[in-house]
Amino acid sequence: MSNLPTIALAMGDPAGISPELTAKVLADAEVLASAHIIVVGDKRVFDEGTRVAKLSPVLDVISPMATIPKQPPRPVFIDLGHCDPKNIERAKVAKSGGTFARENYLSGVALAQCGIVGAVTFTPFNKSSMRQAIPGYDDEISFTTNAIGFKGDVREFNVLDGLWNARVTSHVPLKDVAALLTPERIAKGLDLAHRAMSDAGFNPPRIAVAALNPHAGDNGNFGREEIEILEPSVAAAKARGIACDGPYPSDTVFVRARDGQFDAVLTMYHDQGQIAMKLIGFDQGVTLLGGLPFPVCTPAHGTAFEIAGQGVARVGATRNALLLAAKMAAKQPPKAATATTLEAARTIIALGAVAKAA
Amino acid sequence: MSNLPTIALAMGDPAGISPELTAKVLADAEVLASAHIIVVGDKRVFDEGTRVAKLSPVLDVISPMATIPKQPPRPVFIDLGHCDPKNIERAKVAKSGGTFARENYLSGVALAQCGIVGAVTFTPFNKSSMRQAIPGYDDEISFTTNAIGFKGDVREFNVLDGLWNARVTSHVPLKDVAALLTPERIAKGLDLAHRAMSDAGFNPPRIAVAALNPHAGDNGNFGREEIEILEPSVAAAKARGIACDGPYPSDTVFVRARDGQFDAVLTMYHDQGQIAMKLIGFDQGVTLLGGLPFPVCTPAHGTAFEIAGQGVARVGATRNALLLAAKMAAKQPPKAATATTLEAARTIIALGAVAKAA
Repeated sequence: MSNLPTIALAMGDPAGISPELTAKVLADAEVLASAHIIVVGDKRVFDEGTRVAKLSPVLDVISPMATIPKQPPRPVFIDLGHCDPKNIERAKVAKSGGTFARENYLSGVALAQCGIVGAVTFTPFNKSSMRQAIPGYDDEISFTTNAIGFKGDVREFNVLDGLWNARVTSHVPLKDVAALLTPERIAKGLDLAHRAMSDAGFNPPRIAVAALNPHAGDNGNFGREEIEILEPSVAAAKARGIACDGPYPSDTVFVRARDGQFDAVLTMYHDQGQIAMKLIGFDQGVTLLGGLPFPVCTPAHGTAFEIAGQGVARVGATRNALLLAAKMAAKQPPKAATATTLEAARTIIALGAVAKAA
Repeated sequence: MSNLPTIALAMGDPAGISPELTAKVLADAEVLASAHIIVVGDKRVFDEGTRVAKLSPVLDVISPMATIPKQPPRPVFIDLGHCDPKNIERAKVAKSGGTFARENYLSGVALAQCGIVGAVTFTPFNKSSMRQAIPGYDDEISFTTNAIGFKGDVREFNVLDGLWNARVTSHVPLKDVAALLTPERIAKGLDLAHRAMSDAGFNPPRIAVAALNPHAGDNGNFGREEIEILEPSVAAAKARGIACDGPYPSDTVFVRARDGQFDAVLTMYHDQGQIAMKLIGFDQGVTLLGGLPFPVCTPAHGTAFEIAGQGVARVGATRNALLLAAKMAAKQPPKAATATTLEAARTIIALGAVAKAA
């Protein structure tokens, strides 16, 4: 029996580079050696991706009603048969593209929730297409927690080789950030980062906390959040055994982290970390959702409509997403599977979410 | 007669790497070939710098009462004789260090204001030492405008080879940034950037405007400043003939600028630009004060107390500061000198500032 973890790979938006990336990553020897992979999508869209990528990965195609083999020797492709490539126009926002990605992703989440896989990965979604398919769609976090009725705290992490970024606030107006920086939110951010990074093999992760204000507030001259909120939060987390330090001025903390002084930076707002991470490794970054019952990993870049269908998309970030998912799935506590088919898993989570919401 | 501009170089904090940098930059062949240089400091502190740097630049030493030669063939050193190195402790914040830097810098400003030099440069100040020497000291901008009684709008620019960063707000708490983003401030930022960069040889400078909110507000979902303030400001500036565009999401605009799509990024707050610029070129960056009657340039890094006296300080940013000052001074309109000695120039600006304040 293999000791490798099993992970799900959900195909993302069919109008961009997702089909091509799916084909490329399933032909990557290191990825194939790191996990058993269950792909979810439409085989015709996948075949279109293999034509663009000029690669023909070997896989076993099954239906959603079929028993999913345990530790399959080759990737297994669950063909939902729900999207004819003839109906997909390349590089266009469309409800059909959002629906395709939504169904694949929900399937991956169902497989994880029912213990069939230990982690979920997906190739890029298009946010506008997702909004057409899912009224009120905000981001993957709320969509996922709603899907499985999960009430805990979930955060997005940005991961580059050896350098993680977690944030206390995310998709909110900049003017609202300062008021959202409570000791509770900062503590949760540090705890989740510590836990997720420990799962990924850091022992212990060395976390720098970024300051909110220029020059870390310059001793209170340009803002007092460092003195009143961040310094006590760092001290409290240290007392809990978390290897953190700061708050450090945000314009130099990433230079220090890039040079190896820290494994992660906890940032106070979206762009504080994203500016740095995109400059350090624009097309290698991975987005991880941490705090769920299972890790979810995806490339940090988007659907790249402008190069869709050309075969030039770089697979590095998708590859890194699958490798990180495999590493973290291997550290998950063992879980008994509660279903053997995708159809059963989807039914279980649909009923479960309804029950938890009630 | 030489066509080279004349620039001033004021020695900065004596307890850090400033003496060493002054010695190193005056031994740089490209710098010496780009401008006539008038150095202001104490010759004994400079000599200490040459010992640390293991370099002995050739220069002519004169007193503050002596006539400053026009277009001198070698750098001229005006020796204020105001600081005995025996009284300076390395790597220590001290009022004496702040006083030394203050007097040198005020002298450089006086030389520029009286038309003796076309630009001012200085090696790093220590902010804490400056505060001990100058009650209420905030930054170089207000100190300079007070010194010459200047009422116009002055901004700090960060300059890396071919990539400029100007900002609309600077040393203010992050929570106050959004309210400070008025159409007037953004227009001034764009106008000053356009003018300063045109002086530095960009024709025309291509300026990207960074968004305030994550994902540029995502069509108003995460903040409305892009729609209500930034978009109209960009349109208005374009109509005035400024080559600007945006607002662009701030987490990708610097990747695009670094790759050559823009010459400058106008950022909305301090760290938005500083995070990027420090990652792109930590020890090469120049800080330029634009909008004054003359350009002022200094290395973007600090006094580096931790390596003072070791001879290992890298001169790249100081070198870039002098080269930029020389380039910009060469484009300044010719100005008749109103003084021939430093003493006279200092007296003129002291009286002038008093008169303007009255």
